[in-house]
Amino acid sequence: MKKEEKNVKITPYEVEGSLSEKDYNNLIKQFGIQPLNPELLNRIKKHTKDLHFMLTRGIFFAHRDLNWLLDEYEKGNKFFIYTGRGPSGNTHIGHLVPWLFCKWLQDKFGVEFWFQFTDDEKFMFKHDLSLEEVQKYTYENMLDVIALGFDPKKTHFLIDTKHAGIMYPEAIKVAKKITFSTTKAVFGFTNETNIGSIFYTSMQTVPCFLPSVLKKKNIPCLIPLGVDQDPHFRITRDILPKLGYYKPAIIHAKFLSGLKTFGGKMSTSDSDSTIWVTDSPEEVKKKIMKHAFSGGRISIEEHRKLGGNPDVDVSFQWLYYFFEPDDKKIKQIHDDYKSGKMLTGELKQYLIDKINIFLKEHQKKRELAKKQVDKFIFKI
Amino acid sequence: MKKEEKNVKITPYEVEGSLSEKDYNNLIKQFGIQPLNPELLNRIKKHTKDLHFMLTRGIFFAHRDLNWLLDEYEKGNKFFIYTGRGPSGNTHIGHLVPWLFCKWLQDKFGVEFWFQFTDDEKFMFKHDLSLEEVQKYTYENMLDVIALGFDPKKTHFLIDTKHAGIMYPEAIKVAKKITFSTTKAVFGFTNETNIGSIFYTSMQTVPCFLPSVLKKKNIPCLIPLGVDQDPHFRITRDILPKLGYYKPAIIHAKFLSGLKTFGGKMSTSDSDSTIWVTDSPEEVKKKIMKHAFSGGRISIEEHRKLGGNPDVDVSFQWLYYFFEPDDKKIKQIHDDYKSGKMLTGELKQYLIDKINIFLKEHQKKRELAKKQVDKFIFKI
Repeated sequence: MKKEEKNVKITPYEVEGSLSEKDYNNLIKQFGIQPLNPELLNRIKKHTKDLHFMLTRGIFFAHRDLNWLLDEYEKGNKFFIYTGRGPSGNTHIGHLVPWLFCKWLQDKFGVEFWFQFTDDEKFMFKHDLSLEEVQKYTYENMLDVIALGFDPKKTHFLIDTKHAGIMYPEAIKVAKKITFSTTKAVFGFTNETNIGSIFYTSMQTVPCFLPSVLKKKNIPCLIPLGVDQDPHFRITRDILPKLGYYKPAIIHAKFLSGLKTFGGKMSTSDSDSTIWVTDSPEEVKKKIMKHAFSGGRISIEEHRKLGGNPDVDVSFQWLYYFFEPDDKKIKQIHDDYKSGKMLTGELKQYLIDKINIFLKEHQKKRELAKKQVDKFIFKI
Repeated sequence: MKKEEKNVKITPYEVEGSLSEKDYNNLIKQFGIQPLNPELLNRIKKHTKDLHFMLTRGIFFAHRDLNWLLDEYEKGNKFFIYTGRGPSGNTHIGHLVPWLFCKWLQDKFGVEFWFQFTDDEKFMFKHDLSLEEVQKYTYENMLDVIALGFDPKKTHFLIDTKHAGIMYPEAIKVAKKITFSTTKAVFGFTNETNIGSIFYTSMQTVPCFLPSVLKKKNIPCLIPLGVDQDPHFRITRDILPKLGYYKPAIIHAKFLSGLKTFGGKMSTSDSDSTIWVTDSPEEVKKKIMKHAFSGGRISIEEHRKLGGNPDVDVSFQWLYYFFEPDDKKIKQIHDDYKSGKMLTGELKQYLIDKINIFLKEHQKKRELAKKQVDKFIFKI
């Protein structure tokens, strides 16, 4: 490893500081994952006709075993998608990034989608969170997943405490093969970690093979996730072959920045740095105008003369990652901001309008989702 | 601690060597439990009219909080009984000791009885045991509990994997309050222990308060158990008050010796040292005659002259602990054997007859039990 390459400290329970493009590249080596290269994107495109902008823009940037997954798919062995959410709070825009991508995958490949709500995890890891609170957030988060338009016939919610009856008997098969040493190394646990948190990764492994258990045949699994979740599935990938199941394939996303700091993982503890999906248009405007870290210059004059820097601008990143799928428009904004033609206030207003259009629709759909929850929760 | 007092190594996962009366006395200090004294026995007798021979003979020899339990009972706050079995093999005579006592408690106090089959535990702790094997033993063990005549209306079987749906959500509340350090200290775990075994004690705590959860009121719990299981409930007793439940009361039994060694815990791995409840009269005869450790002399002449030692004789212990409830008869046997009037062969034959009468009846009842299993498994 070259001198300037530093290891980034990333586990599901800690993401240290902010990440640059170089950090993501280092992470590929550090985690032993593969970059999503143009050949692979073309191979996906063969099946999907077009490519989601999160693929072409490198927001999903790395993978494990995606070629194998497509081999199986081409042989007629359809995969299912699995992702999840630790319901420790309300949903923010950052959470929606991988979910929206899952929706696209479901539409394009016509596959089943399993979504795990890890209420046990959040209860055990968060000292001050009661199970009742976690379960309230689970409900709120479910509405947001449903609002994205998943097919209720092909989408199944697993809630760890609610589905423990089918999950725990499978989790113990996984747990039997993981030592405390392994979890110490992978998650940074200590002797003072509680024994529920230590056990928990077994529960997160279950959805990777539960559909195979239920259908009594081996079904490939694809997990779109934020790259910080990869450590759980490194363990999973070691163990599932020993239980007679496929290793899950994984596709890794970068983090959407919090408003205040470019490159970090959006925090749920700083409300000013976060747009919640339930925020009002006024709240959105206020937060973006006040807190979105800007790549602009200190004065309009200087900005007009020297131009801004979209590459460190959170508003631009949010458009690029989520709110402006149109490649021509995003290039125009990039160039106009860089040249100084577009001012920071204008860029922010563009984003505010985009967010508010999205949230108006989303909030309408999440109201309607309240009647649909039962259809999505997996029937035991 | 005086010089001659040694600490006995006893955890649910290791019972070291054989235990003398002195060892049991030391254990009382070591575990911080209370001896079952005559005052307490009299207090029990007030309610039960007579006392079970396992109480008067000191087979149940120690307790935690039994006075408190009786206080509550006398106030009208009835307790329930909870015990269990790790289904890692078929049932042997040793297992029946606490169960038979539970039956007496149920009859005398008219209380509910919760019986936990810890199939998850045995699967995770025993390297070579599959979940299917453990579940087969669970079924076999259930028949033996039912055969003892428990009231199906007041008896509820919990099977950890089958009842995970109600147990896991409660277990995580316990697990959140236990660190790995604690389980290391209490159970002797290491970094190489698997994470399922580490978590498991949380599941063993659940039946102590599950009836309180289900009935939405705080119900006292009494656990009759082999003294090696006490460490689990030391943790339980630390934690339950923090969750708003009573500490369970405990009553501790000594171990029934294996045939070959006086004073140890009957092993399930040495079939020659064990009488299974399904053994034939011939097998019983052969094992007792061949393997039961004897306190007799090396020749009949010497035995007649010097007498035998019933206090180290496994056959006598088995009569004392289980097969000869009649106090007059047991005293007669003790004295006759000690004086040399009764020979080892006669003592063994007396035991063989008692076992075979018991097993003939038990085997009939466990056949009938096959139709009753569903009535005993707790309905979720």
